[in-house]
Amino acid sequence: MVSRLLAPDELEAALRRIGAERYHNLHPFHRLLHDGKLDRGQVRAWALNRYYYQSRIPLKDAAFLSRAEDPALRREWRRRLEDHDGTEPGTGGIARWLALTDGLGLDRADVEAGRGILPATRFAVDAYVRYVRDMPLLPAVASSLTELFSPNIISERVEGMLRHYNFISPRTLEYFSHRLEQAPRDSDFALDYVKREARTPEQQEQVLDALRFKCDVLWAQLDALHHAYVAPGLIPPGGYRPA
Amino acid sequence: MVSRLLAPDELEAALRRIGAERYHNLHPFHRLLHDGKLDRGQVRAWALNRYYYQSRIPLKDAAFLSRAEDPALRREWRRRLEDHDGTEPGTGGIARWLALTDGLGLDRADVEAGRGILPATRFAVDAYVRYVRDMPLLPAVASSLTELFSPNIISERVEGMLRHYNFISPRTLEYFSHRLEQAPRDSDFALDYVKREARTPEQQEQVLDALRFKCDVLWAQLDALHHAYVAPGLIPPGGYRPA
Repeated sequence: MVSRLLAPDELEAALRRIGAERYHNLHPFHRLLHDGKLDRGQVRAWALNRYYYQSRIPLKDAAFLSRAEDPALRREWRRRLEDHDGTEPGTGGIARWLALTDGLGLDRADVEAGRGILPATRFAVDAYVRYVRDMPLLPAVASSLTELFSPNIISERVEGMLRHYNFISPRTLEYFSHRLEQAPRDSDFALDYVKREARTPEQQEQVLDALRFKCDVLWAQLDALHHAYVAPGLIPPGGYRPA
Repeated sequence: MVSRLLAPDELEAALRRIGAERYHNLHPFHRLLHDGKLDRGQVRAWALNRYYYQSRIPLKDAAFLSRAEDPALRREWRRRLEDHDGTEPGTGGIARWLALTDGLGLDRADVEAGRGILPATRFAVDAYVRYVRDMPLLPAVASSLTELFSPNIISERVEGMLRHYNFISPRTLEYFSHRLEQAPRDSDFALDYVKREARTPEQQEQVLDALRFKCDVLWAQLDALHHAYVAPGLIPPGGYRPA
């Protein structure tokens, strides 16, 4: 618990500690993915489930926009929609994720319909969308702060996947190279926002809780993948079954 | 997909097939629990997480009541609140679940606060509450139909746990003996309701989907417990750690 008002830089340090303890780069599924220890079916399961997360991000951001009364804040946040949805068909982050699932040989209609995704994926991702829809703007912004930690994991992922998997090419990983530019820009803004707007210990605690919550959302998705496709490998009823 | 209007008894048969394929009695965690293969810490983790589910059920039922315009339907459904919340402190299903967690040596304040529950538990259970809050009444009723299948699992559970665990007594399992009377009464009503009110193939499909959804909610909770406390035994950050 935050027992006194933290200086802005202390708040940032506390946020970074949460990332160091709870961000999903620490999850063994990512270790296996990046070290080339998964087979094509397991990588497909990851990309299929993660597509559901990608596809909900613009809904999350639109829910945020629908509640942000400050035009300047909306202008800033609107870029996130553009990043994901692009400017025309075939552009933007969602289209780039589909290039990855295409490259892995998944059927695009199945991916877009979410056929075979794990129920736990849906529950976790939907919880995130609803969090941003229902919570005050301050924790809603703070829940995006996992992006502070994503550049490291993305660099490691791209490098590791290209080296280890012959079914992965630079083109199929193009999603991530864009995120390497977008994520720091977005997280800089969000970090400044929460350092400025969290003006009481209670608000600072809300900001820290929001980041813990978001780490849980990401971690739970990997737990579900790990349980279904790695150890013990128990795919729930209706879940995608690698051929 | 339902391609033509099913006779009411065909709809019931289709519902029972879903239960036979997806109800969580088929999950290995329940096999271990009932066969005495878990230690006290694992049983505690189960009871702690399941408390969160119990505690949300009256919120789910109140959300349903808040949208049911027919007084007869509300009178019928209101019993569910009474069953869980009781008539005075210390009575009702939630209090009986706390008798179980007390008997297992869990701290009651921790249990009631949900300290250490798995994020996946929260995501799955909250998804259920929101489903009943947001969906039309017909699928909201249908999502309760897992109770059709609970008497078998409860009998097996009580018998197995009493036989195998010296830290379990009939008193701590009292929750379940009450459910053996309540669940059939509730599921009889809900089954009659959906057989009567689902009057198009689309509505029948919605009913079947609602039951699949609810099976997913229950299954995902056991997946998370199994992954954290059995195999591979990877407890997520912040999760309850047996001593």
